[in-house]
Amino acid sequence: MTALLSSEELEAALRRIGVERYHNLHPFHRALHGGQLQKFQVQAWALNRYYYQSRIPAKDAYLVARLPDPALRRLWRSRIEDHDGHIQPEGVEQDGGIARWLKLTDGLGLDRDYVISTRGILPGTRHAVDAYVNFVRDRPILEAIASSLTEMFSPTIISERVSGMLRHYDFIGPETLAYFTPRLTQAPKDVEFALAYVKEHARTPEQQEAVLEALRFKCGVLWAQLDALAYAYVSPGHIPPGAWRP
Amino acid sequence: MTALLSSEELEAALRRIGVERYHNLHPFHRALHGGQLQKFQVQAWALNRYYYQSRIPAKDAYLVARLPDPALRRLWRSRIEDHDGHIQPEGVEQDGGIARWLKLTDGLGLDRDYVISTRGILPGTRHAVDAYVNFVRDRPILEAIASSLTEMFSPTIISERVSGMLRHYDFIGPETLAYFTPRLTQAPKDVEFALAYVKEHARTPEQQEAVLEALRFKCGVLWAQLDALAYAYVSPGHIPPGAWRP
Repeated sequence: MTALLSSEELEAALRRIGVERYHNLHPFHRALHGGQLQKFQVQAWALNRYYYQSRIPAKDAYLVARLPDPALRRLWRSRIEDHDGHIQPEGVEQDGGIARWLKLTDGLGLDRDYVISTRGILPGTRHAVDAYVNFVRDRPILEAIASSLTEMFSPTIISERVSGMLRHYDFIGPETLAYFTPRLTQAPKDVEFALAYVKEHARTPEQQEAVLEALRFKCGVLWAQLDALAYAYVSPGHIPPGAWRP
Repeated sequence: MTALLSSEELEAALRRIGVERYHNLHPFHRALHGGQLQKFQVQAWALNRYYYQSRIPAKDAYLVARLPDPALRRLWRSRIEDHDGHIQPEGVEQDGGIARWLKLTDGLGLDRDYVISTRGILPGTRHAVDAYVNFVRDRPILEAIASSLTEMFSPTIISERVSGMLRHYDFIGPETLAYFTPRLTQAPKDVEFALAYVKEHARTPEQQEAVLEALRFKCGVLWAQLDALAYAYVSPGHIPPGAWRP
């Protein structure tokens, strides 16, 4: 890419990456939403995805540590709060996204200590999630922020997922899916800031290409996690040594 | 694990990990050696595995950078030399493992610039290899050295691989497999030092468990690369967006 894109063209190019690479296109996701998975396969998904959820605050804290001013840090800190929860003025703890994800794994009958230990996750899950955390820790701030923009595409997938899973799986009820409801409002709020930041700060063709590449990388992080799940738990006999066995 | 293992028990525990987790057990490897792959699948393996080869000197240089004395650094530096090659006194360059790997990808008909660009590799390959490099960069030296010990198991797999591939694939000749022959002597030399180091320096049960865990981690790095290949290129329709298409 050599020409400088307008702000609208850059946004369109980002959205095109979502159309081509977001993990709603992955066969495992289609099967998950479409009710084609057995319970142990949904369990494997929730168990592995817990590791992703659990590392999101670390990823965001690395970015907060690198942001240069209080206003930016405050904005980005809200992501950590969304995932880790709050202590209310009355001293009551309010659950965040991680605690709500554990309601999902509880609801699926997985042992909570085992889930939190992450001992049973697939190597591919661990490598992909760690790659994301390291990307945000190590790359320029512009690219780190751009890598969050998969959330541009998440509200659709979340509403599909919730309705599809409730309809198709009798072992899943609304309270088990409590994780997802707040994400429908949190993700757009987060995207609004990140997209504006990227549009403002990607001022050269090279920076714009770096932003697009960061989003491609992140799509790969999400996609590779589903590849690992699909290979291990959809086709029989492919669970790696040491990983969770149903 | 709470009891301190003897040196022999520690070695036996390391070897047991190989028996249970080394990637010679992976269905993709069995298919590769057994002649059950089509040419495009062997190409995909060589293309992706190039990224692993290309990062090995970086992994080893991170360790050299952290080793505390010249004798240790000299020993470990020989691994970088094995992969990157030498400039002989007469000024003639002598190829290393990376150049020999490119003979394999050349022999398979892949474009060399495309291979070196690593643009077409699977996200799962990139995440796994980067996880290994980061592990060696970031973890205690003892664990970084222990993670190299998969080479205890590699001479067997290499000789199986060479003979199996020559026997089964008419598109592969001995010169294409030039990478592997030196590894049959390099790997045992490297293992001798690393194993002795680990036995000497893992002096507490916790250190011994960390050493075993480092080897399990590394087995996961190798295993996950084959998971990604098998999912993308063995079952039809699963090549991730952006990855090489035959």
